[in-house]
Amino acid sequence: MLRFSTAGESHGESLVAMVSGMPAGVPVDLEFVNRELWRRQKGYGRGGRMRIERDTAHVLSGVRHGKTIGSPIAMTLANNDWKNWTEILPVEEGDPEKHKAVASPRPGHADLAGALKYDFKDARYVLERASARESAARVASGAFAKLLLKELGVGVASHVIRVGKAELSRPATWDEIVALQAKDEVLLNCVDPESEAAMKAEVDAVLRTGDTIGGVFEVVVHGLPPGVGTHTNWDERMDGLLAQAVMSLQAVKAVEIGRGVTAAESLGSTVHDSIGYEGEGGFTKFSREQNNAGGIEGGISNGEDIVVRGYLKPISTLRRPLGSVSFETREPVKAAYERSDVCVVPAAGVAAEAMVALAVARLVIEKFGGDSLRELQRNFNGYCEQIRAY
Amino acid sequence: MLRFSTAGESHGESLVAMVSGMPAGVPVDLEFVNRELWRRQKGYGRGGRMRIERDTAHVLSGVRHGKTIGSPIAMTLANNDWKNWTEILPVEEGDPEKHKAVASPRPGHADLAGALKYDFKDARYVLERASARESAARVASGAFAKLLLKELGVGVASHVIRVGKAELSRPATWDEIVALQAKDEVLLNCVDPESEAAMKAEVDAVLRTGDTIGGVFEVVVHGLPPGVGTHTNWDERMDGLLAQAVMSLQAVKAVEIGRGVTAAESLGSTVHDSIGYEGEGGFTKFSREQNNAGGIEGGISNGEDIVVRGYLKPISTLRRPLGSVSFETREPVKAAYERSDVCVVPAAGVAAEAMVALAVARLVIEKFGGDSLRELQRNFNGYCEQIRAY
Amino acid sequence: MLRFSTAGESHGESLVAMVSGMPAGVPVDLEFVNRELWRRQKGYGRGGRMRIERDTAHVLSGVRHGKTIGSPIAMTLANNDWKNWTEILPVEEGDPEKHKAVASPRPGHADLAGALKYDFKDARYVLERASARESAARVASGAFAKLLLKELGVGVASHVIRVGKAELSRPATWDEIVALQAKDEVLLNCVDPESEAAMKAEVDAVLRTGDTIGGVFEVVVHGLPPGVGTHTNWDERMDGLLAQAVMSLQAVKAVEIGRGVTAAESLGSTVHDSIGYEGEGGFTKFSREQNNAGGIEGGISNGEDIVVRGYLKPISTLRRPLGSVSFETREPVKAAYERSDVCVVPAAGVAAEAMVALAVARLVIEKFGGDSLRELQRNFNGYCEQIRAY
Amino acid sequence: MLRFSTAGESHGESLVAMVSGMPAGVPVDLEFVNRELWRRQKGYGRGGRMRIERDTAHVLSGVRHGKTIGSPIAMTLANNDWKNWTEILPVEEGDPEKHKAVASPRPGHADLAGALKYDFKDARYVLERASARESAARVASGAFAKLLLKELGVGVASHVIRVGKAELSRPATWDEIVALQAKDEVLLNCVDPESEAAMKAEVDAVLRTGDTIGGVFEVVVHGLPPGVGTHTNWDERMDGLLAQAVMSLQAVKAVEIGRGVTAAESLGSTVHDSIGYEGEGGFTKFSREQNNAGGIEGGISNGEDIVVRGYLKPISTLRRPLGSVSFETREPVKAAYERSDVCVVPAAGVAAEAMVALAVARLVIEKFGGDSLRELQRNFNGYCEQIRAY
Repeated sequence: MLRFSTAGESHGESLVAMVSGMPAGVPVDLEFVNRELWRRQKGYGRGGRMRIERDTAHVLSGVRHGKTIGSPIAMTLANNDWKNWTEILPVEEGDPEKHKAVASPRPGHADLAGALKYDFKDARYVLERASARESAARVASGAFAKLLLKELGVGVASHVIRVGKAELSRPATWDEIVALQAKDEVLLNCVDPESEAAMKAEVDAVLRTGDTIGGVFEVVVHGLPPGVGTHTNWDERMDGLLAQAVMSLQAVKAVEIGRGVTAAESLGSTVHDSIGYEGEGGFTKFSREQNNAGGIEGGISNGEDIVVRGYLKPISTLRRPLGSVSFETREPVKAAYERSDVCVVPAAGVAAEAMVALAVARLVIEKFGGDSLRELQRNFNGYCEQIRAY
Repeated sequence: MLRFSTAGESHGESLVAMVSGMPAGVPVDLEFVNRELWRRQKGYGRGGRMRIERDTAHVLSGVRHGKTIGSPIAMTLANNDWKNWTEILPVEEGDPEKHKAVASPRPGHADLAGALKYDFKDARYVLERASARESAARVASGAFAKLLLKELGVGVASHVIRVGKAELSRPATWDEIVALQAKDEVLLNCVDPESEAAMKAEVDAVLRTGDTIGGVFEVVVHGLPPGVGTHTNWDERMDGLLAQAVMSLQAVKAVEIGRGVTAAESLGSTVHDSIGYEGEGGFTKFSREQNNAGGIEGGISNGEDIVVRGYLKPISTLRRPLGSVSFETREPVKAAYERSDVCVVPAAGVAAEAMVALAVARLVIEKFGGDSLRELQRNFNGYCEQIRAY
Repeated sequence: MLRFSTAGESHGESLVAMVSGMPAGVPVDLEFVNRELWRRQKGYGRGGRMRIERDTAHVLSGVRHGKTIGSPIAMTLANNDWKNWTEILPVEEGDPEKHKAVASPRPGHADLAGALKYDFKDARYVLERASARESAARVASGAFAKLLLKELGVGVASHVIRVGKAELSRPATWDEIVALQAKDEVLLNCVDPESEAAMKAEVDAVLRTGDTIGGVFEVVVHGLPPGVGTHTNWDERMDGLLAQAVMSLQAVKAVEIGRGVTAAESLGSTVHDSIGYEGEGGFTKFSREQNNAGGIEGGISNGEDIVVRGYLKPISTLRRPLGSVSFETREPVKAAYERSDVCVVPAAGVAAEAMVALAVARLVIEKFGGDSLRELQRNFNGYCEQIRAY
Repeated sequence: MLRFSTAGESHGESLVAMVSGMPAGVPVDLEFVNRELWRRQKGYGRGGRMRIERDTAHVLSGVRHGKTIGSPIAMTLANNDWKNWTEILPVEEGDPEKHKAVASPRPGHADLAGALKYDFKDARYVLERASARESAARVASGAFAKLLLKELGVGVASHVIRVGKAELSRPATWDEIVALQAKDEVLLNCVDPESEAAMKAEVDAVLRTGDTIGGVFEVVVHGLPPGVGTHTNWDERMDGLLAQAVMSLQAVKAVEIGRGVTAAESLGSTVHDSIGYEGEGGFTKFSREQNNAGGIEGGISNGEDIVVRGYLKPISTLRRPLGSVSFETREPVKAAYERSDVCVVPAAGVAAEAMVALAVARLVIEKFGGDSLRELQRNFNGYCEQIRAY
């Protein structure tokens, strides 16, 4: 089974990512992995930290001679700022005087709930783990899932469809979305320049006012055959697994599959995707003229593009802080401020690509089995032939 | 660990629900369990089948002398219509002539993807398991989770906030929402009579036209202390687990926590819930004046009401069927029609209550431990004292 | 993923077994399932209850027209004695007077530890679930795993190699072991009549003295290709999974793979199975002249027969009871006595076959994937060709 | 939930261990962790590599200011020999000429089965992960479990009871076993000097002949209250979990709980541990005069010492190698030889302590809950009072 986990504090020595269950023999392009990490760090509206960091995955295991070997893949992502934190946040007891408490909980963060839960006097330890910096380790893990899926012809990409009130004004094609990944500069990761300009204006506005802003990203999985995921058990449905994967990302507060939000106010006759039989070149000849279902029916992929949207709340850390309470005095204070971003929708989209890729790769491995890439591909191709002849 | 699973085909002899990991000593009110099942069957816009069925949970194990005994709870929910299906859908080989194929896949259902995946010649076996009838077994399981949570003072309830284009026009209080459960007649499970009338008009419209309609339900968890769920691992966050739980329900295509959808277009200064210290009578004195976060920050409950919304697409089975293709001839046909509903938003809300209760109860049991209700309550109370004194 | 769970109290209305993750299209021979249940009930040394019961699996779901359909399989195994227990052990509150307490904990059983853990005043509820009767539900589940494995040419069988001090005096062949399953009368499930007579004498001795006796059974998996299970993660190794599966059976206190117990006192040069290249007709040409490893090296099947032994302690319930203490008075008493067996080694072997079959089938499904039997077989055959050409 | 995983190849840059689910606030003594690693490296009969290595856990996360913080703990264990392997085993493609193939599979190892499974041309990648070096990462993980258990008064220790044919000649007390951990020199980790001398003679014999030897270790858990683990679900029983934990260790081929092996040939009247009521100073007044059950009845701890034995086959790598076959020519050759040990029973005992500690800590956390050590201890103490008053 494909499993992954992460460890690491935001200002600790490094993040750690572990991925197990990858078949052996998958070619590993480390530049691609690092490019993914770079993509997560970019976007208009990022704060100062993104200038300090330049994330790189240092692979410790599971890859040899440029290929996976079936063993767990472990990576570290060093924190370039660690030298400034060794006395503040040492593993050893250290000097209590050097401790840098987060003296008041920041609304929108795990600070207060976490301090109560874990019985901490301040929110430092909570912040360190709850920080979205952790998503870098997810991106590194997801890069491996993408490398695997690529070998089966399955692609995963994201784009931004809203920042604040500025929305993408037209549908995007797969080719447009995937082309965004090649760009040397990430602005707001939007396929349409005019819409992107409007999005940028939204960010500029909050930069001026010390506020923050959220938005909506869309992740698309292209080239996945019908039949991945299952309707038979609630906890093996692809829709539920994708919802968990994306909702578990920092700041995501809603997840939508296909046209899920608007479907709730539409008529059945317009929502559902009628079935035809003209699908030349597809996995089967069964065809659709629209994809409101976002590629999933009954918890199973149906052969159309998988479309998942994440709704991102505005960044919780504001330069103009919100009202809070001092942990020590219990008097009203402004919430603590740690250097932060004002808009991270493109980056969240990159992290969501990783989560979606991991969830889909897990289901692909479950369906097709195989301990080597060769075995997986043989099984995959056998199934594709089976359904083509259906 | 609290685990649950379901089995059973829609027209099979019975559904089966299994719940394990419940502490011993929880009083079991079977009338309550059956009342929950009744609630799932009701609502304006249900089809003929709801008149045939009157679901009852028959407990086979795990409950003795009116209390849980720590052992797995197994229940069957008999299908009253089974007598008409014994020859159509026998466990044994039976007479192939009596088989009742679903000759064309219905758009919006698992039919086509499932038939390809499992290599079935028609969609009968897929339909039987993918049907929302399965959610009755979830409701029976969830009733046990609710019985447990009740002993800790935690309540779970739902209401409908949209049907088609008709929306609830005002906020609802917890007391209003919970009062809906006591009503003898379920219309659209809306706290506001005028809004409900508008919702009913939406249903009446589709009843006339042979169309179907969806909507939005909201599940609220009341009385849960801060500190349930965790930010430390992506797959243990409460937000992700709730998203999976609700998205895994039939016809749910989007899940929102708190004001997740509108937060994506709002400013950080208005979205986040400032922290005060006036919370007399609460779990702690920390207080909030609004709850846009829906009671979850950083994947952890923060002591406010947990608020989860599910967006339901319109029922996929239309009396005026959508375009499809014959499995046999591959010619265009109208999709198969099996007796169905036109609006199920209230029922989906009841099923979502069950899923939310199960997810929350699982996290509660993980946090507080305890093999008997007495032990669980002692641990729970100890923690409540700890955070009160924080 | 293949998962299974059981529910049910020993004297409750029925046991329940649930198996999910079976591919679709596997032919289901219900007589075979019931034959397996019959085998578990037989053997020399069984008590009176085995004469009351005649276990039959009543399939409620997951099988239609004689084949699996990919959905969870649920079964009930009715308790024929339930009519005598409805007032003693009702689901509802019932009449406390009718309760039949287990007034003193029986050494060797979960009675005391369970009563303390779950905060019960007596051991009734513990006994009801901890009873080895539960293993009937495992046998029914395992029968499905066997049906699946059979389609891939993999067989699972057991035999008894020791009862008390009487040991099987010679090696057994696969054909001999598998032939035992066809016998109409189960004595001690031993391949050698003379050894079996000695075993019977051991049972006769304890029958006379009111004592009980244990022994050792051996489960063999035949026809499994090399490469099932993995060395890469501790919790995915086949040896660990088999050890858990068998040790979790009631009364099993040691598990051995291959010649594990004697290997610990032998020299490396005699223990390890040298590798040759004469294996005509096998999965590969690599060959072995002995199988001390029990078919598993490094947590992976190596193509030889998988051999797992379970060491069974004597039945804990003695007709001549052991010393115990009254729950009520805390005075010394003789342990409670519920009708029981004196020797169950053959039955435990049958239950262990089920557990081993379930564990192996899980790993097989993980390695080969496939949602239909056709897909699984295609993948399986593809791999067999791959290693034949290695 | 307490979870742990490891990564890393034997000759890679470093091993990685990850432990999640530890409560916050547990004091972390890094010297203790490293001492545990030292203990795993010691013992009479170890090879040259143990002289190169001096394992140290480098903690990257989850511990701050000398205490756990509730977040996942990640550690690396650097391989001091890595500098000699960077060209042989690079992560990147590297120079194929530098590759150091394992040209023939070694009997007793995963080599052949792993190469077939993962479609490798030789056994290098299999050996690298299947090597018992991986158990160092388990020991580092287990050290954290021990630190947690220590705070609850629960100790875990091991000793050697057999090497080859030399057996410990008398019972060992808990104090004797635990005292072994403090010794500055590990010989064969036996509590009795005379027995240890006999064990040493066994090792000396195989050192002379180029052979290898195994043995039996015993792990004891002391101070665990009754009621940990459960009889209610097969996969939550403590006996099964311990069996998996220990059997998953490299070279373990049998696992025994209490007197499991000899119980199988003994009478019930002598095997089972009668219950008295004299237990002053214990968790309850219920008492036992013997502990053949090894502290587990019905899958639940019963308050006596947990006793688990592992049977270790002789090391599979012999200086005088076994017969094998060349991967390339398929001609008979002697098996490949990599520098190795001749006896590792004490070290395997240390690794088994770690596995047992992790399994027990997981069940303890499940039963008692708690996110901070303070909360866990309060819950634990509350339960201890409950059962004392039973």
